[in-house]
Formats: sequence, structure tokens, C-alpha cells
Amino acid sequence: MNLEEYLKEKRGLIDSAITAMIEPLKGSSVLHAAVSYSLMPGGKRLRPILMLSTYHAIKDKEESIIPFACAIEMVHTYSLIHDDLPIVDNSDLRRGRPTTHKVYGSDMALLAGDALLSFAFEIISNRLHLEKFSESALLAVIHEFGVATGIRGLVGGQVMDIVAGNMDSIDEETILYIEEKKTASLISLALRTAGILGGVGEEELKALTDFSIEFGVSYQIIDDILDATSSPEVLGKDTGQDEKNRKATFVALYGVDGAKKMANEFVQKGIGFLSPFDDKYKILAEIAEYTLQRIK
Amino acid sequence: MNLEEYLKEKRGLIDSAITAMIEPLKGSSVLHAAVSYSLMPGGKRLRPILMLSTYHAIKDKEESIIPFACAIEMVHTYSLIHDDLPIVDNSDLRRGRPTTHKVYGSDMALLAGDALLSFAFEIISNRLHLEKFSESALLAVIHEFGVATGIRGLVGGQVMDIVAGNMDSIDEETILYIEEKKTASLISLALRTAGILGGVGEEELKALTDFSIEFGVSYQIIDDILDATSSPEVLGKDTGQDEKNRKATFVALYGVDGAKKMANEFVQKGIGFLSPFDDKYKILAEIAEYTLQRIK
Repeated sequence: MNLEEYLKEKRGLIDSAITAMIEPLKGSSVLHAAVSYSLMPGGKRLRPILMLSTYHAIKDKEESIIPFACAIEMVHTYSLIHDDLPIVDNSDLRRGRPTTHKVYGSDMALLAGDALLSFAFEIISNRLHLEKFSESALLAVIHEFGVATGIRGLVGGQVMDIVAGNMDSIDEETILYIEEKKTASLISLALRTAGILGGVGEEELKALTDFSIEFGVSYQIIDDILDATSSPEVLGKDTGQDEKNRKATFVALYGVDGAKKMANEFVQKGIGFLSPFDDKYKILAEIAEYTLQRIK
Repeated sequence: MNLEEYLKEKRGLIDSAITAMIEPLKGSSVLHAAVSYSLMPGGKRLRPILMLSTYHAIKDKEESIIPFACAIEMVHTYSLIHDDLPIVDNSDLRRGRPTTHKVYGSDMALLAGDALLSFAFEIISNRLHLEKFSESALLAVIHEFGVATGIRGLVGGQVMDIVAGNMDSIDEETILYIEEKKTASLISLALRTAGILGGVGEEELKALTDFSIEFGVSYQIIDDILDATSSPEVLGKDTGQDEKNRKATFVALYGVDGAKKMANEFVQKGIGFLSPFDDKYKILAEIAEYTLQRIK
């Protein structure tokens, strides 16, 4: 099976699981509709796939981690919905369709995002997971979700993203802060959740974390490059947004070519952290290399 | 000590604990400022005080539950910030001051709310609590927070609140749904958290839940009555909002006097659920009776 087929298969797995998970919420009518619309059909499902792949590399199975993979996709979707709102980035297009607030209104989009964040915590704290994982591991994972999505993670990144847009000049440190918090924290959460639930040691967890931060930054740089060079038709979302909103990106600082070079370097540096484990995490390196093809 | 002094003392306890908790977040600049502004000085701190009082009735102490009490206040504050946004209720005044978005902008208010929800989960999943509580109890509480704040709780109530505002006619069932989800779910969460961490049995937990739902509905009815009869100067927040936004309330359905009668009845019914425990939960009954004085 080549990588594209692998990714497609895992995407299917995630999509089915998410569909089953939101099914019981149907009673809540318009909110359920807004939540379903935002989640399905989804995007690349990168974060959940990274979680499945990491866990599979450790345990040679993946089923028991699927709910956690869905939860991270819910967190990611929540952040997209809120980010797209007119009061933030004011984006009209996402995953090739009108954004959630364009269809359901800003109030319902806000609440659909809110609901998804709570739902993620509801899912990962379910006692049914105790058949597979220890209470201690579950608690650790929940805490990681809290930190990674909060002020010192996702939200902190979004805030600096907005703040930096109003600054007179931008520097590498600020951009790195934004990309690490805004994007790498969730990618890191995906790998750390798999590592913790898979029971790897401290050193291995640190290596997975180190890889995920470098890869996460690279992934955001790729996103920024595509915002500058691609089109809504190809990308399925508004482009040219960063320039319009004066966002602090490496594209703005070093140009498209400079940013491409950096994306490559971050991926290579990240893969380096996995070398002590030989081929164990080969799939992660392959996925990281694959994402670079989008800017080739 | 009379009840007003008691409430004031507990409020002080919560305020100090919240202040200490948000102190380490100071690095995140404008977000920290927006979060601090929203949390301090606070309102009546009803939900955390109910949690402390319930736990104290069970265990004769309260210190170990303070972080959970702060977490529930953070959840409550998050819901107020999002609710006040121009894309929802568009309220300018809260706790006697301009709402968070009036001071920090809608984008920062949105993110301050988001941050508070994640922070609540970060706080309650801290491993330090294991010195006082079992992993199992912690997991149960986290799950309760997830459910109570989500589609089947807080967010579900907010959605119906908005939806019902656009309906041609309102009925008792819809109003009760809104008040139970929007308000009673967090009040119930406060008591259930205390009950679970205090280790009460199923029957007692059910009684606490039953009380909290009746009291929670009553508390929302009182809020609706004050919206119709009080002034921003007295209440510290915009009034007349429900009529303006055509909100589905018992005031709209039965008038102020009818709603007052209902608020009383709900409190009495709630207190009835505590009678099997003699004076153990006397403080809860006292607080419930006390809230009725606001509409005397």
C-alpha cells in the first residue's frame, strides 16, 4: 500500500468514527446540523491520522485510540470555526464549502465550536476507555488536552497571531511562537496522546514531541506558502488572507522561496529526532516528507 | 455568622484562589488581561460557593475542592463572555462594567472565553489533586464537566435560547428546557462535583442533583424577573434584554407575578429533596431561600 492509499484508508476510519459519535446528538437540531456540517466531510484529518500512526507504531494496533483521534479532530475543527468567524479572520470558504457561520450564522457557529471543545473532553474522559488504558494515563492525556488547547497552546497562538498582525515589524521569534502555539501544539498533542496511551518511556515521548514541534511548524509554514501561492479552487479555502490581514509569517519575512527552504529544514530536523528508533516511526517521517510535496 | 457574612467570606476565598491561579498566565499579555478583566472582580460566585458549601456539608472541610470551584466559575465566566458578544446577545454591561468585548474587542473576548474553558479542564485534571482524591473520582468529575458544558448542557441551552427567540409561540416545556440546560446544568455540576469528590452514595448524589435542578431553574427565573423589573444601575448589567430579544421566559409566558410564584415553587420543591438528610444540607436551603429575597 502506498502512502496515499494509507492516508485515504485512515481518513475513512476517522470519518466513520466521527459520524457514529455525533449521531446520538441529533436531538439538538440546528446545533447538531452545524456541528455535523463543520466535521463532515472533513479535511485531510492530519492530526488524527498522526495519532493513529504513532500509536500503531508503538502497539501494532489502533482501534482503542480512535476516540482520542476523533477528539483531536473536534478540537481542530472548533479552532477553525472560531478562527473563520467574521470577528476574527472573516473567512467565507473552508474545505471547499461556505464556512459554518456563512451557513448557520455567527451565533450558531460560535456555539458549534464551543460544543466541539466540550465534546472532545467528554469523549476522552469516558470510563469505557478504562478497559484499554489506565486511569493515570487517561488523566495525563486529559491534562495534555487542556494545556495544548489553552492559553499556553492553541488559544495563545491565535492571540499572538492577531496581535502580531497589528505590529509595525515582525521577527522570527514572534512567528515561531505563533506557529508553535497555533499549529504545533495540536500536532504535538496528537503524538503525545499516542505516546502516553501507548506507554512509551520519557525519552521516547520527548523524541516524539521534538519531532512533532518541528513538523508542526513546518506544516504551518506550508499552509502560509499555499495561502500566498495557491487559489481557493485548489485549496478549498480563501487564499491571500495572510497578506490582507498582515499576518506574521515566514512568507512575509523571507518570501516564498525562503519559506520553502525553512519548511524543508524543519521537516528534516524533526525526522532527525526519530533516528534513535530506527524504522519504528518510519510512517511519521513519510507523512512529513509527503506534506512537503504540496509546495514542490 | 449570618448568611450574608458567610457568602462574603466564601466569595473572598474564591476570589483569592482565582487571582492566584491566573497569576502564572501573565506572560500572555492581552489575553491574560482579557481573562483577568472577565474574572475579577467577579459577581456573586454562586456556583463555586454552592460547591464549597456542599462539600463542607459532607466533609467538614473545603480547601481541597477550591480549584474545582474556581474551574466552575471559569466555565461560567466563559459562557457569559460568549453570550455577551455582539453576535449573540450584544450586551454592553456586565457586573457593573463594560463587557469584555467592549474593552478588548470581540476577537479577544472570543478567545478569552475559549481559553477559560480549556483552563477549567486543565485545572481539574491536575495530578496534584490525587493527594486528596482518587483517579476514579477525578475522571468522573472531568466527564461531568464535559457533559454539563456541552451540547446536552450549557451549549444546548444557549442554542435553544436563541432558537426559541425566533419562534412564533413559546410553551412551558421549551422554557424549562432552556432554563435547565442553560442554568441548572452548571449549578447541578457544582453540587455533583462536591458530591462525587466527597464520596456520597448514589441516592444522596441524586438528591443533590434533584435539588440543584429545581434551584437552578428557579435561579434563572429570578434572573428573568430582574431583567424585566430592575435597572442596569442596580443589577450591573443590561436589563430589558429578554423582551427586546423576544426571549422565551416564564415572565413572557405568565407575567412577573406568575414567574415569582414559580420561582418560589421551584425552590420549595428543590429543598424538599434535601429533607431525608435532616440539617446536613441546611446551608443549601438557606442559600436557595436567600436568592428569592431578590424578587421580594
